[in-house]
Amino acid sequence: MTTSRVTIKDVAALAGVSKGAVSLAFNRKPGLADATRDRIFAAARELGWAPNLAARSLSNRRVDVVGLAVCRPAKLLGLEPFYMEFISGVEGVLTERSCSLLLRLVRNLEEEVGLQDAWWRGRQVSGSILVDFRGDDPRVAAAQRLGMPVVAVGHPSLTGGLTSVWTDDTTAVTEAVRYLAALGHRRIARVGGAGSLGHSALRTAAFAKAAGSLTPVRVWQVATDFSGEAGARATRALLSGAGDDRPTAIVYDNDIMAVAGLSVAAEMGVRVPAELSLLAWDDSQLCRLTRPTLSAMSHDVHGFGADVARTLFGVIDGDGEVGVSHPVATPVLVPRGSTATAPRVS
Amino acid sequence: MTTSRVTIKDVAALAGVSKGAVSLAFNRKPGLADATRDRIFAAARELGWAPNLAARSLSNRRVDVVGLAVCRPAKLLGLEPFYMEFISGVEGVLTERSCSLLLRLVRNLEEEVGLQDAWWRGRQVSGSILVDFRGDDPRVAAAQRLGMPVVAVGHPSLTGGLTSVWTDDTTAVTEAVRYLAALGHRRIARVGGAGSLGHSALRTAAFAKAAGSLTPVRVWQVATDFSGEAGARATRALLSGAGDDRPTAIVYDNDIMAVAGLSVAAEMGVRVPAELSLLAWDDSQLCRLTRPTLSAMSHDVHGFGADVARTLFGVIDGDGEVGVSHPVATPVLVPRGSTATAPRVS
Repeated sequence: MTTSRVTIKDVAALAGVSKGAVSLAFNRKPGLADATRDRIFAAARELGWAPNLAARSLSNRRVDVVGLAVCRPAKLLGLEPFYMEFISGVEGVLTERSCSLLLRLVRNLEEEVGLQDAWWRGRQVSGSILVDFRGDDPRVAAAQRLGMPVVAVGHPSLTGGLTSVWTDDTTAVTEAVRYLAALGHRRIARVGGAGSLGHSALRTAAFAKAAGSLTPVRVWQVATDFSGEAGARATRALLSGAGDDRPTAIVYDNDIMAVAGLSVAAEMGVRVPAELSLLAWDDSQLCRLTRPTLSAMSHDVHGFGADVARTLFGVIDGDGEVGVSHPVATPVLVPRGSTATAPRVS
Repeated sequence: MTTSRVTIKDVAALAGVSKGAVSLAFNRKPGLADATRDRIFAAARELGWAPNLAARSLSNRRVDVVGLAVCRPAKLLGLEPFYMEFISGVEGVLTERSCSLLLRLVRNLEEEVGLQDAWWRGRQVSGSILVDFRGDDPRVAAAQRLGMPVVAVGHPSLTGGLTSVWTDDTTAVTEAVRYLAALGHRRIARVGGAGSLGHSALRTAAFAKAAGSLTPVRVWQVATDFSGEAGARATRALLSGAGDDRPTAIVYDNDIMAVAGLSVAAEMGVRVPAELSLLAWDDSQLCRLTRPTLSAMSHDVHGFGADVARTLFGVIDGDGEVGVSHPVATPVLVPRGSTATAPRVS
């Protein structure tokens, strides 16, 4: 099954090393001097030898690829800082292990189930990161049936018995609402993500519950696709209400929508924070680059991605306990220039 | 080399289909009814059969993976809208072909050469997208030696004889400088990327040449890592000059730095555009979300990524002419609220 009758022995002989050293070089394992590795690759090139991927994979499930399928339209993936920061955090850890990320956009979770199945059976990945869980997610049973190493990014109530890493959105949303209420805000809106996403649904429930315990508070919740344009539209609609029909504070589920909201407030002559408080989520560098700067529920998205990658390697290596969930640090409120006490008369 | 003695024939028999249909299903090719595909996968699962990846690859080089290595620190990758929009454009085309993207961060181009070699010989990819070319790039000879299908993203002067897709930065930079000069600006700065990047070097040369033909123009050029923080620092330094030592217009090599520049101008009490014109590059949604909105050298980065992916499939399929270069649409000037005529007295 090699591409020629040249064998690893011939390569080792030409390079003046052991077969084990050739194997180390082609499996991209540490321990070889750069010069030795170069000599081995040169010898393999000269002889036209290549390692047999299938044989390698059979003898060692730990191939150097981790899978990630994302169920979002291509156009939207590029618009949100969150995913790129998350992926960059994953890549940072993968690079330390000389691993690559196999990235795929899928139209729905059923397509992802088929894809993960093919990736795993075809030995294209050694494990996968599963994201954007929804209620009754078909990937839970599929991953368990395959016995495939996975880490689920999502609340344990959504990820079944899979090993998971999650953000405590309920606590964070509650803190946000309590803080705005403490500033005197009684009309609070939330511009959120799609209701079909599990973490959006959890935030929606937490927001309603937190506001409900703080009467009289009037709340609005708007679902969007996370894009700046959708955030701008939602803000325009919310600020078009008069008197009691207009919120004095808006919480956004990401930061690009909060940046858009800030711009719409300026466009409509609503002063931030004197007349309107804005609170972003995720807190990429954008929140520090606007005028006023944006208060945010801040979490380390890059570190989140890194944590998920490390947890997956634990599952793949058999070091970690499978089925264990652990939360990353809960987003913390970082007050900046866009939040203040509620206007006296409004 | 299959994982058990069960063969494709057994799977076909259990599913009540031909061997060809099983092959279509596992190669993720179109033409099968969903129900048929489901039945085939169910039969394979029941029998514990998996296709032999190596055999599949040997008979068909067109595996369903395309490679992309990026030589940037993980942290920076997450900060720039450009790469995520580019990758989302690539993914949009890959998804149409049921392909995945194998993404890897590398520390230097030498590491990338070794990686592409291993990917290609190991049949992990059917071709690769090469980005961020520099002068005398080692990947040109390496790709030609391997006979690997690649598309180079970069100016033909940098990409040797490889098939390439490129943006005409020279024309765009010249247009930007001429426009600012026509508005009366005679002191123009550029906040650019790292000098080691080929496209940054081309822009630097074009900027100097365009400004040189329009005396008296005083120019500054500052190299950064493309981050908002670096853009803010560069802007602060430029605006700290007095009188003739301060530019009246600044061009940024991406849009996140221009957003940062806008914020620094506000922080320092410099009015945009009355006292200072700002011109962004790339033009993601950010430029339309700031106050004032940002004028930009606008190009369709998502479409650029899609074009690159389509060109690579042409090379892989043998449809396209290898070694041909084609430019994508040149960035066009989109004037918005951040550019105006130069201040009379400054």
